[in-house]
Amino acid sequence: MPSGSTIQLPVTKVNAAISTIADDVLASEEPLEIRLEHNADGLVAQKTISVTMRTPGNDLELATGFLFTEGIIASKDEIEMKPGSGGANNNIITVSIKAGIDIDIKKLERHFYTTSSCGVCGKTSIEAIKTVCKLSETANDAQYPAALIRSLPEKLRYGQDIFERTGGLHASALFDGTGKLILLREDVGRHNALDKLIGAALLAGMLPLHEHILLLSGRISFELVQKAAMAGIKMITAIGAPSSLAVETAAAFDMTLIGFLRDQRFNIYSGAQRIVI
Amino acid sequence: MPSGSTIQLPVTKVNAAISTIADDVLASEEPLEIRLEHNADGLVAQKTISVTMRTPGNDLELATGFLFTEGIIASKDEIEMKPGSGGANNNIITVSIKAGIDIDIKKLERHFYTTSSCGVCGKTSIEAIKTVCKLSETANDAQYPAALIRSLPEKLRYGQDIFERTGGLHASALFDGTGKLILLREDVGRHNALDKLIGAALLAGMLPLHEHILLLSGRISFELVQKAAMAGIKMITAIGAPSSLAVETAAAFDMTLIGFLRDQRFNIYSGAQRIVI
Repeated sequence: MPSGSTIQLPVTKVNAAISTIADDVLASEEPLEIRLEHNADGLVAQKTISVTMRTPGNDLELATGFLFTEGIIASKDEIEMKPGSGGANNNIITVSIKAGIDIDIKKLERHFYTTSSCGVCGKTSIEAIKTVCKLSETANDAQYPAALIRSLPEKLRYGQDIFERTGGLHASALFDGTGKLILLREDVGRHNALDKLIGAALLAGMLPLHEHILLLSGRISFELVQKAAMAGIKMITAIGAPSSLAVETAAAFDMTLIGFLRDQRFNIYSGAQRIVI
Repeated sequence: MPSGSTIQLPVTKVNAAISTIADDVLASEEPLEIRLEHNADGLVAQKTISVTMRTPGNDLELATGFLFTEGIIASKDEIEMKPGSGGANNNIITVSIKAGIDIDIKKLERHFYTTSSCGVCGKTSIEAIKTVCKLSETANDAQYPAALIRSLPEKLRYGQDIFERTGGLHASALFDGTGKLILLREDVGRHNALDKLIGAALLAGMLPLHEHILLLSGRISFELVQKAAMAGIKMITAIGAPSSLAVETAAAFDMTLIGFLRDQRFNIYSGAQRIVI
């Protein structure tokens, strides 16, 4: 992990009998402001599109992944990053939209899964994703042994260097089809950890991730399934529980969704045909 | 919990030896759109200010708490709720601003802790909160026995009826100064669970919560400390770890911040003078 991901400070540790003062390691949390810069007709316009509380590090990946998973950009070639382009502590990233690229400003006003005409509900959310999510259309008929799935959490723990120390970071890990750990990103926000991971994969030219397996350290929300779908991921596994809408969304996109992957056990909520037991 | 908080569906459960199909209970997750309606000069204007993924139930409290903890309203008397005022599945709440009340629309554009002039960093975030957060100014010199703090998680478990079943819900619980459980709210989003709790307290005329103790089931982010500060809470305890900015913010507001409260132990990150060991 980059420096700045953690800080150390003294805390009072209390147990039933005694209280001691000792150093503790905390996960860093700072705001990151993402600004879009657009050159049109010789004029330069800037717009703040997001302020997210994140753990510093991999900020370019985070901004790239956020813009991509929110459906604002379709390719890394549409943008140029201007890191450290202003503000204290490098907490602002300005992303320049290349000339000739048309950005839908409406999408920036709020998340694209809201539609003012018909209100919001799970069904319309899923339909809205389908209209912008091209990568998930490809079928993936690959199968994965249950033993491979069970082996993933131990590999995540081996790869994580901060979580064990602070207990305060979410992790997103990407494995290839043979169960080899390819990418690992951590953050205080689970959506940020996944945006960093997908941003890194996008910048490395790895998308779509049809054959890869995603492992999340915590619970699975709708938002995480939606972001994974944008990257073409078909296999989501998680240590924690999924929500109802996470399962519905995974099923709508023909994704395999596995939760409670721990202690050599797991539950399959969707897409069980990909798992060989 | 209200009906609709969970759904039941069949899942494939896999362990080392066998695979079985059994029913599982999931936490419900659906979007809630909050719209502000403003009557000015005889004209009615509506604006969507938030779409949050939440567990259905206590939606009026959620909307009230959100508007209050984001600094958009200062009192419950400034608004009127219009529940079920449109959309499928009651996933839209329209909040009517009473005549004569002036709402700062700029605050609605993005979270108030962003300032376009000086960029964003932890320091400016904390300063920005201080300008809108009047309730935290009162001192609280109360003290709490360590044994009382250690007793809280067991009381939370006793009060929670859903978390144990799904493993998928965050909880926010409010105790009085003697350690009695007063309010408990659950949600797939931890910020929603706290907004529901603070909204309920606001609607019940309980604010400011200077003498109360807040218990969070998970980790402590900056955002949760900020919301607690808005409600005048001075004692935050949590089962999980705090982030660096959560600790900084608690210290800036003279709040006691306790993390890793489990197995009869806890760590004090800020405000240790309130705990009698």
